Amino acid sequence: MYQVDLNCDLGESFGAYKIGMDEEILQFVTSANIACGFHAGDPGVMRKTVKLALMHKVAIGAHPGLPDLAGFGRRDMAISPQEAYDLVVYQIGALAGFVKAEGGRMRHVKPHGALYNMAAKRKELAEAIAEAVYKVNPELILFGLSGSELVRAGEQIGLQTAHEVFADRTYQQDGSLTPRNRPDALITDHKQAVSQVVRMVKEGTVLSQQGTDIAIKADTVCIHGDGSQALVFARQIREVLERSGICVQAR
Amino acid sequence: MYQVDLNCDLGESFGAYKIGMDEEILQFVTSANIACGFHAGDPGVMRKTVKLALMHKVAIGAHPGLPDLAGFGRRDMAISPQEAYDLVVYQIGALAGFVKAEGGRMRHVKPHGALYNMAAKRKELAEAIAEAVYKVNPELILFGLSGSELVRAGEQIGLQTAHEVFADRTYQQDGSLTPRNRPDALITDHKQAVSQVVRMVKEGTVLSQQGTDIAIKADTVCIHGDGSQALVFARQIREVLERSGICVQAR
Amino acid sequence: MYQVDLNCDLGESFGAYKIGMDEEILQFVTSANIACGFHAGDPGVMRKTVKLALMHKVAIGAHPGLPDLAGFGRRDMAISPQEAYDLVVYQIGALAGFVKAEGGRMRHVKPHGALYNMAAKRKELAEAIAEAVYKVNPELILFGLSGSELVRAGEQIGLQTAHEVFADRTYQQDGSLTPRNRPDALITDHKQAVSQVVRMVKEGTVLSQQGTDIAIKADTVCIHGDGSQALVFARQIREVLERSGICVQAR
Amino acid sequence: MYQVDLNCDLGESFGAYKIGMDEEILQFVTSANIACGFHAGDPGVMRKTVKLALMHKVAIGAHPGLPDLAGFGRRDMAISPQEAYDLVVYQIGALAGFVKAEGGRMRHVKPHGALYNMAAKRKELAEAIAEAVYKVNPELILFGLSGSELVRAGEQIGLQTAHEVFADRTYQQDGSLTPRNRPDALITDHKQAVSQVVRMVKEGTVLSQQGTDIAIKADTVCIHGDGSQALVFARQIREVLERSGICVQAR
Repeated sequence: MYQVDLNCDLGESFGAYKIGMDEEILQFVTSANIACGFHAGDPGVMRKTVKLALMHKVAIGAHPGLPDLAGFGRRDMAISPQEAYDLVVYQIGALAGFVKAEGGRMRHVKPHGALYNMAAKRKELAEAIAEAVYKVNPELILFGLSGSELVRAGEQIGLQTAHEVFADRTYQQDGSLTPRNRPDALITDHKQAVSQVVRMVKEGTVLSQQGTDIAIKADTVCIHGDGSQALVFARQIREVLERSGICVQAR
Repeated sequence: MYQVDLNCDLGESFGAYKIGMDEEILQFVTSANIACGFHAGDPGVMRKTVKLALMHKVAIGAHPGLPDLAGFGRRDMAISPQEAYDLVVYQIGALAGFVKAEGGRMRHVKPHGALYNMAAKRKELAEAIAEAVYKVNPELILFGLSGSELVRAGEQIGLQTAHEVFADRTYQQDGSLTPRNRPDALITDHKQAVSQVVRMVKEGTVLSQQGTDIAIKADTVCIHGDGSQALVFARQIREVLERSGICVQAR
Repeated sequence: MYQVDLNCDLGESFGAYKIGMDEEILQFVTSANIACGFHAGDPGVMRKTVKLALMHKVAIGAHPGLPDLAGFGRRDMAISPQEAYDLVVYQIGALAGFVKAEGGRMRHVKPHGALYNMAAKRKELAEAIAEAVYKVNPELILFGLSGSELVRAGEQIGLQTAHEVFADRTYQQDGSLTPRNRPDALITDHKQAVSQVVRMVKEGTVLSQQGTDIAIKADTVCIHGDGSQALVFARQIREVLERSGICVQAR
Repeated sequence: MYQVDLNCDLGESFGAYKIGMDEEILQFVTSANIACGFHAGDPGVMRKTVKLALMHKVAIGAHPGLPDLAGFGRRDMAISPQEAYDLVVYQIGALAGFVKAEGGRMRHVKPHGALYNMAAKRKELAEAIAEAVYKVNPELILFGLSGSELVRAGEQIGLQTAHEVFADRTYQQDGSLTPRNRPDALITDHKQAVSQVVRMVKEGTVLSQQGTDIAIKADTVCIHGDGSQALVFARQIREVLERSGICVQAR
């Protein structure tokens, strides 16, 4: 029986500022990555998002990011592995406070934005992040880019991991995502995006931009919670996956 | 047998900025209130301070403050009880992350600065903070100004509490601290400060500025970790308390 | 000939977060109060908003706020007059950088949110803010609540001032705004709001909630740039004011 | 007649946190680079530092940095040229507010830390910064690493520039500074450091770590304002420069 998790970044509002349709998207996903106040989110938003996720029985994960609210955590920063460790421990802890207060359980950790991307390639950062997760709670599942250094570091230290794939991104022959600044980086056609995911889950394969099939592991699929098409696509991918005999559930 | 706890605010450095002589003061105190990144402290400082406290077998507490690094959490802010709840949950959680990572245990929570002072007088804020502590971990001890609304709220919700007294501050007939802007607010003579504490612990009494003795509960004594006299005074109060037959230990 | 200024708070977006319909509202107002990065706004948003205002020939003003992005500058903070002075100088200067870079001219300063409200009542804060404005540029016009301490302080130090009224708020017999937490604080009927403004401008009078007419000076009218009805109301008030023989222009 | 400027980074305290001996070092330098609140400094510190510099008749410059207080602006961040432009305009403007309020004049701009280093090598960042300075005030002098892209960009846009050298750093054959992580990066011997500067000023030459003399332009020398030896060294370099017939003054 095939199985996959659908995850989404949530809790990205801040103070008077609202981003995302958290309540609506929670109907379709099985894992929620909740921002922890560094790149997005604030204590009030975290509390509300944890409550919503519990209400919808969606698995809760911490979504730690770089300390860069102005840049939404998307700008690379030259942090040391020690700094990465510290800010991941801090943010997991902060979210865990709300999860405990609401009587829930945290299931996973997925670094955000530039932290995620840097950890995909740089071994020392990946190891520092994996260690942070492991030392706070060795039962947490570490989400990282499929085949990345981050997932590797998680496995090495003894964590459960989830190889993450993207529905709406194209892949290169070496398994990396096509960089966003290239015109062929995004898949805008919903059908094609869903088909790519179904194939990744069932066959462990994806067609690269170079025209060859490459092997890929798809434990969890990232979908987006903002943008005008987000809800339509979320509903569609969920339906097609289930119709295709794939069980959509958190790990 | 008399008993009292000696606590100190620690981990108040931030990035390149250093405040306090944490390592030295830890030799004399029995409880460390560790800043959590809002009014002071940062993830790296929190990790180091937790490690130091564990090494010195000093009880670890969270020291949550207002989100006001520029004002060191000393400026009153008109936050709602819900906002107080949220920022206390967040900060306790964040510190708990480091405590768990280091294999320790958190023992208490003491709000900082303006948050502490506002919670001493305002019932709804006090209740919100007590609820935050209780919901994150009902075994935590809540520190508050002796006889304050905060301690009362803690007791009401079912928390263990610690009535806190100050060695170097004078008291008013109604049990409140003499406001800092008054010339007789501070006790600068070390002997007098220590004597006041010994009497508070043994007799449950303090001489008010109005010349009458008032009842006061002294579970824990706050001493300062910065200033040129901090270490001298810390050593002195510890010695005199012990010589006076008072057991100095965390609760 | 009657004359009034229509002002609106703009440039309140921050990083990935968007608030307000700045470009649209600029068609209707004559003064733009631009957030300066403390309670809202960021350097990129400031640059874009200054450009937009110049393009629409709308007078540019600095809109300094408390250092509280999480609270959007709406929470009272116990800052000293010196701190108020410093943060106003800083924020006027920062915006002036963009105005100079674009070849424009800054015309006014209007404190934001809690800073505005505190300065309306507290003389020392009002004087500190007026001094900050005066010392940076004595030709700036200081906007403050009609009849407030802030306007008074501005006049005293030698600044031009603008008494500000609100279209959608009701007034008390003493000239103060009805507090927002009261059910009769807001005027939701557009016609009534516009009529109130026309009368304030032409007759210098407003009907208080106690049923008596009181004197009020209306140099500038604040309208809002967000909310679903903002544009409709902006167009309407502009049209009715002009039809009523009132010249709508910056001072 | 030989001439050189001695500059120092000042105003790096923040809130309750103190760094540097600003008042003492101002006796020896001729240019003060004042932090603008992003990587260090706050509005109150900026006001006080501007006053001190004016009192000591030391030329005032803005010292804009990356928005990274926790990292003291020393961590590279992947900001775009547009973002660099915006944060430089903002910070120059903010400091200019205090300079105007005190009746002074701003003379120069020197980017801080990682922003300085990135702008030394990356042409687009350098051009964006130079444009920011030029558009706010074309009479400002742009300080940059001697021979760097930043100085080049400043010259190209029509700014006066100052090639900056370091007393206590060694140089590579290509004119770059020996990276700090190398054991031979720093010159700890005061005499050697001063001699290197005298030679750079008088002969336009420095001995590289590869053993060959290279050409170098020395318009301004950076010295440090913190560290136990800072004052001793400041006094010494000032004295030796003057004894060597070099006029020490701002440009």
